Amino acid sequence: MRTAFYVSDGTALTAEAFGHALLSMFPVEFQHTTLPFIDSEAKADKVCRQINQAFEKDGEPPLIFHTFVNETLKQKVVNCGGISYDFLDQFVGSVAQQIGVQAEPKTHRTHGVHKNYNFRVDAINYALDNDDGKKLNQLDQADIILVGVSRTGKTPTSLYLALQYGIKAANYPITDDDDFEHLDLPKELKLQRHKLFGLTLDPQRLHEIRSQRRQGSQYASMQQCQFELREVEKLYRKEAVPFINSTHFSVEEIAAKILAKTNLQRRRY
Amino acid sequence: MRTAFYVSDGTALTAEAFGHALLSMFPVEFQHTTLPFIDSEAKADKVCRQINQAFEKDGEPPLIFHTFVNETLKQKVVNCGGISYDFLDQFVGSVAQQIGVQAEPKTHRTHGVHKNYNFRVDAINYALDNDDGKKLNQLDQADIILVGVSRTGKTPTSLYLALQYGIKAANYPITDDDDFEHLDLPKELKLQRHKLFGLTLDPQRLHEIRSQRRQGSQYASMQQCQFELREVEKLYRKEAVPFINSTHFSVEEIAAKILAKTNLQRRRY
Repeated sequence: MRTAFYVSDGTALTAEAFGHALLSMFPVEFQHTTLPFIDSEAKADKVCRQINQAFEKDGEPPLIFHTFVNETLKQKVVNCGGISYDFLDQFVGSVAQQIGVQAEPKTHRTHGVHKNYNFRVDAINYALDNDDGKKLNQLDQADIILVGVSRTGKTPTSLYLALQYGIKAANYPITDDDDFEHLDLPKELKLQRHKLFGLTLDPQRLHEIRSQRRQGSQYASMQQCQFELREVEKLYRKEAVPFINSTHFSVEEIAAKILAKTNLQRRRY
Repeated sequence: MRTAFYVSDGTALTAEAFGHALLSMFPVEFQHTTLPFIDSEAKADKVCRQINQAFEKDGEPPLIFHTFVNETLKQKVVNCGGISYDFLDQFVGSVAQQIGVQAEPKTHRTHGVHKNYNFRVDAINYALDNDDGKKLNQLDQADIILVGVSRTGKTPTSLYLALQYGIKAANYPITDDDDFEHLDLPKELKLQRHKLFGLTLDPQRLHEIRSQRRQGSQYASMQQCQFELREVEKLYRKEAVPFINSTHFSVEEIAAKILAKTNLQRRRY
């Protein structure tokens, strides 16, 4: 298997995003190796040795996706013997010409601590404090309130919205303590109806997920999953709560779909 | 202010990563607009209208970073009148030639639900269950155990490691209930000493963070922060616990540094 290296004098997150997106277009598996914080000549020399070892082992030159700010270190890595892809270099001249401003590369500009950083930490704390219906007296501070039956992805989505975008997401479970035959929202949620967003799943998928937790239980049974999902979707429609079926979506996709369907303002780009 | 658009028939996360990294090299502010899931001609037409409105408003053509799988939709957006940057297109031919395989673009390959997806959800649940020293009987399942005094970033880092990499991170607070004069680790942590990783901060920063929570308290006082940090760093050294000072780092940078300093295996790329 051929090796792909992601190398940078910063976190290498941008090199990874770039390389992964590019390689994911090919029906081929790669061995991935990320080498962040390569910020000295000694470290760059060590990278060279790793690249050469992979070359020998694979019998093919590794692909190297890199985003260096330091030009000397970049040249060292470029000259190591792999196939080098530098997407910043490829586009920076064109952007400079277009906007009429010269580039001033600095490390930590992309993934460093910016003026919006505290928003994210506040949003994470908010998501934790308001996970799983723990509190109903802070919902006025929420940017969005995710609702859904147990195990439909509310918690990971809330945390992702907080970490990635600085959005304060509370979540509230429609649980099996509720009377599903006469399902209604608590009055605290009705007061914030404009912030509600529902998650749902295909019954088969919910059955699988719940079975991992409580194999053979009534809670995990196909019949119970079908029943709860049917009733909760009826509730969403009755209360005009927008919702998505997240069966085939990752947390990134769910979050992006929520942003696309609402007017939520990101606190971070 | 000039507008930058991030447009895709998928989540647009890749277009954002690419565009943000590129624009962050310039000392210029942009108005950012992300338009994900542009998967029909009607939606592409609406994108065109938005691009043209921004052009009129700004008096300058917007920059458009896009990653389309659908060629027809891509052409529509490219011909809208902005300045178009397509980094996949720029590199895909070179990679295809290098590896001798043709590209087969599909949506949802980069940010979809992959075989490693359940690892991430399991890791998030683990991080929540084992946050803040809640449980000491599941530490054998941890990939890493973050330790530190209150408010040094253990929880956001644990959640980020889980969401981003599928790594199971527990965290344990060295709290003001502990006897800081005779600081020691509980025996459950000593048994897992090889998994411990410490976080620390500059006293001034910790003082600021704690003051936001409990203004004027003993807990937030500069003296207390200095004392706790000095003692906990002494403990790290005594117990040979690797640690980093995260004062100037974002959660992405802290996580990348931890991965670089340990042999933690990511469960996701």
